[in-house]
Order: sequence, then structure tokens, then C-alpha cells
Amino acid sequence: MTFKSYMNQALEQARAAAERGEVPVGAVLVDPNGQVVAVAGNQTRAQCDPTAHAEIVALRAACAAAGSERLVGYDLYVTLEPCAMCAAALAAARVGRIYYGASDPKSGGVAHGARVFSHPQAHHKPEVYDGISGAECEQILREFFSRRRGENGSDTGG
Amino acid sequence: MTFKSYMNQALEQARAAAERGEVPVGAVLVDPNGQVVAVAGNQTRAQCDPTAHAEIVALRAACAAAGSERLVGYDLYVTLEPCAMCAAALAAARVGRIYYGASDPKSGGVAHGARVFSHPQAHHKPEVYDGISGAECEQILREFFSRRRGENGSDTGG
Repeated sequence: MTFKSYMNQALEQARAAAERGEVPVGAVLVDPNGQVVAVAGNQTRAQCDPTAHAEIVALRAACAAAGSERLVGYDLYVTLEPCAMCAAALAAARVGRIYYGASDPKSGGVAHGARVFSHPQAHHKPEVYDGISGAECEQILREFFSRRRGENGSDTGG
Repeated sequence: MTFKSYMNQALEQARAAAERGEVPVGAVLVDPNGQVVAVAGNQTRAQCDPTAHAEIVALRAACAAAGSERLVGYDLYVTLEPCAMCAAALAAARVGRIYYGASDPKSGGVAHGARVFSHPQAHHKPEVYDGISGAECEQILREFFSRRRGENGSDTGG
């Protein structure tokens, strides 16, 4: 499979999250053999868990399946630039590469703000590839927030 | 209860973590009425979960109990400066105050490295109080790593 097809699976998860009323972000973890080992969408509302971002849900599932707190050589595909929490979790898990779609100037922690991988306190720095299916990833988020503003009269954030 | 007695409960959790062979960090979450609603020690090894730091385990338990992904007005007591992952999770949960013990120049994300709360991408900035029972918190970590170095012939990190 190519990186585009992995990102398509992440996009499916993002769309499913939107249908559940969750901020539409999706993630896919791929093992060193190219096998998809975990897929997840954002679940913060349904789980009442501020840590249940797509990346963390997928990471916890993949670690449980591997019986290890480290995923050396695994790749993460995610539709939105990870926040500082997810970036630091991916570093702690020693994930090899991160492919993300849309940039997140408002809440991102890889290319914005905390820039988690740019400090020596991140003991592992995954390779990062941005802009993968970026326009499509962004469109899902834009439609979700536009619809929510229409319903609520205000944007309650994501 | 005073902040020292809350930190004593966090220290108990840190000692219990050490006995389980986990990096000895403990955390306590207190609700706006001063009630302890969650206590936890680090569980990354036992759970095979790189996100199972004491702060995150306590945060998830308190959110589940509250039925909310936000803990407005809650206080967190933790024996070690939170890493970038935990700091960002605490900001996402809107925790009001963070009291921590030992400073963590190697892996900290509050006063070191990513300094998560110092960027506009952190949409909430908890009040931070450092050095609470700092010497005692540090001593538990120092003894743990010193013992491990003795057993392994090397420090395998934390």
C-alpha cells in the first residue's frame, strides 16, 4: 500500500468521527511490515477523555496489541498536525515516522507552538512528513466547524 | 487538607510505583471542594502504554468519574515536573492548578524544553507551583535509578 492509501483510511476515520459529533481527526498506525495495526478517530466526547485524540487511541491500541510501550519502526498517519500531547506521546513510543495532512496553526505542537520534537527533552524525534492529502483533510475539518457554527451560532472550538 | 498532605498522597503513589518497578512518579487530583478524586502512580510498563504516566492515569480516572472531558477548578499534585504530553493533557482538561515536586530538566515540558503553557496553542494555562516537597520527590527518583544502575550496570532511562 502507498502512503496515500494509508491516509485514505485515516480520512475514513475522520469522517466517521464527524458523524459521531467529534472533531473530525483520524489516525492509522502501520507496523514495520506495512500492516495496519490500529485505526481510530477522535473520541474525546464519547469517552469523556481529553486524551482520547485519534493518535492516542490508535497508539494505545497498537501498544496493547504489541505488548510493548514502544513501537519502534512503526508509522503514524493522521489527518491533522498532532498537538503537543500527541507529539510527545508518539516520541515516547519511539514511532518512526509521522505523516500528517492538514496544518494546525491554532493547536498544533509539531510545526507550531511547543514544537515538541525540537527540544532535547524529546528523547526520540520521528521523521515528519506534512501535507499528505492536506486539502482533503482540511476540508473535512472546515465543513464540520462551518456546520457547527450554523447549528450553534458560534464555534465552540476543537 | 493542606497542599503538603495532598503531595504526601502523591509521594505514596510514587513509592508504590517504585515497588512495582515503574519509574516512581505519583499524582493526585483534587476537586474544587478539596476532595481527592483520583490517585495514581506511573503504569507505563504494567499497562504497555507509553501514555500511562501518573498524571494521565489520574486525569482519565477523574474525567470518567466526573463524566466530563474538562476538570475546571481541579488541582493536580504530582511528584515530578510534567512532561510535554502530560502538560498538554492537563491544559486540554482545563485543570486549574498544578503543584509539582522535583524539577525535570531531562524530560520536563513545563519549565523546560517545550514549555507547553508558554505558547498560544495551549488554550488554557494552569497556575503552576513548583518545588512542593521537592527534595523528598527527588530522593525517591534518585534512589530508584541508583538501585537500577546497580542491578543493570547501566541507567536504562525513565
